[in-house]
Amino acid sequence: MNYTLKKISELLNVDIIGDESYEVDQVSSLENATSSSVVFVSDKKFLKFLDNSKSKVVITTKALSKSCNLNVIISENPYLLFSKVSKLINKVDDLVYSVHESVCTSTRNLNKKITVEPNVVIGKNVQLGNNTFIGANCYIGDFVDIGENSYIYPNVTIYNNVKIGNNIIVHSGTVIGSDGFGYANDEKSLVKIPQIGGVQIGNNVEIGSNTSIDRGTLDNTIIGNGVKIDNQIQIAHNVHIGDNTVIAGCAGIAGSAKIGKNCMIGGAAGIQGHIEICDNVKITGMAKVACDIKEAGVYSSGTPLMLNKKWLKNAARFKQLNELFLKYKK
Amino acid sequence: MNYTLKKISELLNVDIIGDESYEVDQVSSLENATSSSVVFVSDKKFLKFLDNSKSKVVITTKALSKSCNLNVIISENPYLLFSKVSKLINKVDDLVYSVHESVCTSTRNLNKKITVEPNVVIGKNVQLGNNTFIGANCYIGDFVDIGENSYIYPNVTIYNNVKIGNNIIVHSGTVIGSDGFGYANDEKSLVKIPQIGGVQIGNNVEIGSNTSIDRGTLDNTIIGNGVKIDNQIQIAHNVHIGDNTVIAGCAGIAGSAKIGKNCMIGGAAGIQGHIEICDNVKITGMAKVACDIKEAGVYSSGTPLMLNKKWLKNAARFKQLNELFLKYKK
Amino acid sequence: MNYTLKKISELLNVDIIGDESYEVDQVSSLENATSSSVVFVSDKKFLKFLDNSKSKVVITTKALSKSCNLNVIISENPYLLFSKVSKLINKVDDLVYSVHESVCTSTRNLNKKITVEPNVVIGKNVQLGNNTFIGANCYIGDFVDIGENSYIYPNVTIYNNVKIGNNIIVHSGTVIGSDGFGYANDEKSLVKIPQIGGVQIGNNVEIGSNTSIDRGTLDNTIIGNGVKIDNQIQIAHNVHIGDNTVIAGCAGIAGSAKIGKNCMIGGAAGIQGHIEICDNVKITGMAKVACDIKEAGVYSSGTPLMLNKKWLKNAARFKQLNELFLKYKK
Repeated sequence: MNYTLKKISELLNVDIIGDESYEVDQVSSLENATSSSVVFVSDKKFLKFLDNSKSKVVITTKALSKSCNLNVIISENPYLLFSKVSKLINKVDDLVYSVHESVCTSTRNLNKKITVEPNVVIGKNVQLGNNTFIGANCYIGDFVDIGENSYIYPNVTIYNNVKIGNNIIVHSGTVIGSDGFGYANDEKSLVKIPQIGGVQIGNNVEIGSNTSIDRGTLDNTIIGNGVKIDNQIQIAHNVHIGDNTVIAGCAGIAGSAKIGKNCMIGGAAGIQGHIEICDNVKITGMAKVACDIKEAGVYSSGTPLMLNKKWLKNAARFKQLNELFLKYKK
Repeated sequence: MNYTLKKISELLNVDIIGDESYEVDQVSSLENATSSSVVFVSDKKFLKFLDNSKSKVVITTKALSKSCNLNVIISENPYLLFSKVSKLINKVDDLVYSVHESVCTSTRNLNKKITVEPNVVIGKNVQLGNNTFIGANCYIGDFVDIGENSYIYPNVTIYNNVKIGNNIIVHSGTVIGSDGFGYANDEKSLVKIPQIGGVQIGNNVEIGSNTSIDRGTLDNTIIGNGVKIDNQIQIAHNVHIGDNTVIAGCAGIAGSAKIGKNCMIGGAAGIQGHIEICDNVKITGMAKVACDIKEAGVYSSGTPLMLNKKWLKNAARFKQLNELFLKYKK
Repeated sequence: MNYTLKKISELLNVDIIGDESYEVDQVSSLENATSSSVVFVSDKKFLKFLDNSKSKVVITTKALSKSCNLNVIISENPYLLFSKVSKLINKVDDLVYSVHESVCTSTRNLNKKITVEPNVVIGKNVQLGNNTFIGANCYIGDFVDIGENSYIYPNVTIYNNVKIGNNIIVHSGTVIGSDGFGYANDEKSLVKIPQIGGVQIGNNVEIGSNTSIDRGTLDNTIIGNGVKIDNQIQIAHNVHIGDNTVIAGCAGIAGSAKIGKNCMIGGAAGIQGHIEICDNVKITGMAKVACDIKEAGVYSSGTPLMLNKKWLKNAARFKQLNELFLKYKK
């Protein structure tokens, strides 16, 4: 879709500097821009790349616009506006409602305003909201609710009794509602604890690919509104995740952990079971969280990267660290 | 299903204190109990929550029962008994044997006492034991054996020549028998080593969702009896896992590692290839195991969580640790 | 298939010591060899195991052959030759071209020289090269290209606009082209950035099971030629991976990271977003890479494994490390 800058100005309520009749047809990176694509610059240090870019239109702040010779769309949050322009230009087609003839469903009277691709299997008493899309080869268990305007990509598995809100995206390979990992010891063997809780997911949640969210043991595993969960993530049984918390790829949240609102959990970070993290906490990548966090802030663990030769020596010393302290005290 | 405490006492051979005619219909957490649900308390510190719980029946030890005013089911292992009561109440329906008409199978004469959901694809010479369930959209390769009373959730992939015992549970998204990661160097390129071994899994094994278990290079990858494997786990080629070992979410076991019996591998722990871990070893979460372990015990690695500001300083010092030791010695 | 050593010598252009008429029918480990299987020894320390092995044929170097009483196939790279012999003996059958009647495709005129298993769903404008195999229950999105001689195992999901080269293997559960994890802040909520880039994968690439490769935000995520990617790996949006780089299981590569050629990324290593790693870098298992690497070499981070009791003391001291240095300086 083509837009003049004037049209963008009207639709998104922003100011333009330059030629309002200029037409754009795509957003792009600075490197691969064409003369009809829009780029953005939110930091002074990227201004220099504009010179080598073929773009004629940049989204940037009023302050930075002074250093630009291009047409400018003014925004104090250029990345946010860039995403809005991208959504305009890359408008997703409205769903053509249809349930493919190969779909197996035990639910009578499924909502008609949905799209279900081939080979989807749907259990009984399932509710799917208006404008919801279920991709090919998904499995949707009994008593599952999925709200409106939700998009479930192919090959997703949703177990029984999972309740999901509106405006949800779930990427392929993800499993929601699998049994939590719970056993009782019976002398030398382990006896499975039935996992009779469910999973409850709020609105405006996105879940990446190949992620696992287990059902609760007795009560629900709970994912709040606006939570964003990346790929390859483990969310164990009984976990609670507060609203608008963001969890990056490969992170693992162990059973019964409670994470507050507006937290950022870095990639491959590990949260131990049964601990609580308050609101507004940021955990850096690969950190190990083995205790409650009661104060907002940025937290880390681990050691820095070194040449292996040097690391071997320092790592060996780590084993003697307590000894050194004790000697030094003397 | 409803049970009087008397009935529970008879079925599970336990003692009751209080009203034997009292009826219960569910197990629950202390927080969300109703007047007809059973809770458990296995530690003194949770006794105080009984006061605010609506439950009228608690499973606890004889010793703790003295501090309870509710009806009590006595057990010296309350969590184990709780799981048994949960199984009674939440009894799983017997399978209704059927193979859905959409199932594609190259195996003639499949066992009749099984349930196979829609869109399952089954290779040739597959054996499925009595009362085994194969969920929708699974793929079962040639020459696969799965024992009795096993439950394979939807969207599981089992490659050729995988042998699985009785009473197995495999959760969705899991892949068993994919090729191990093995290459020979041919100057600058890598030549794939054919992975001609299989996978052999014992009885009473549970495998979580989105887990990968690779086939052996020449011999089998072996998972013992009673092993419990959580979600998002990597088990590489030629690994051996001893009986009753438990592996928590996101752990990775590299090629040809051998893990003993009754071990507990913590979440996101990493076991290096070609090492051996003896029986009864416990590895804590996120630990890195890069050498053999020859003695039972609890092992750890990593550093504790800190405020990022403080961590940056300490982590920088880690790079100078050997230097410090050498200076101090002088 | 059976081969005489003479035949192997002719086909693979290698020298034989011993009985050229001796027949073999399989490759095997030293432990489980039979009298008709071929083993290999590439290191002196394994020679002793030949005595207890039933094998009568060993692939080894000229130097080591002097200590062997068996028939010998001479190679200065025994493991490489072993893989070639294995490929000879375990020859994969040629594809029987066919598209199963249950396949749903929106692409007219699919190439006829392919095999597509049941329940595969194929979007529009898809190109599949000669001798390419698509396993059961895969999803192949619109405008996907997959080259010749490629093998996509069951239950793989490939989103729209993914371009894949020749001689590719993709294992089950893997997802290619899912949306990158990108949001712009809009006061307290997060606004999704449309992920309009694709994924471009070179030739001779193998990708393990349950791995995720995200599409680019604006440009493509790029995987070079000869790259080998193991199971359970996260490759985020905009990542570039150079030719012949090898990535072991559970590793995570965060957004916009650039990894050079001929690198080896160890298991569960984590590469931070937006950093660059030059060619010929080796990262050891579980290392955390949070800065650019500009020089070839082996790099590590982390701490060594200890008994938990000892670890607790040392780890506590890590928190005081900077303090100790400052005191010591005084």
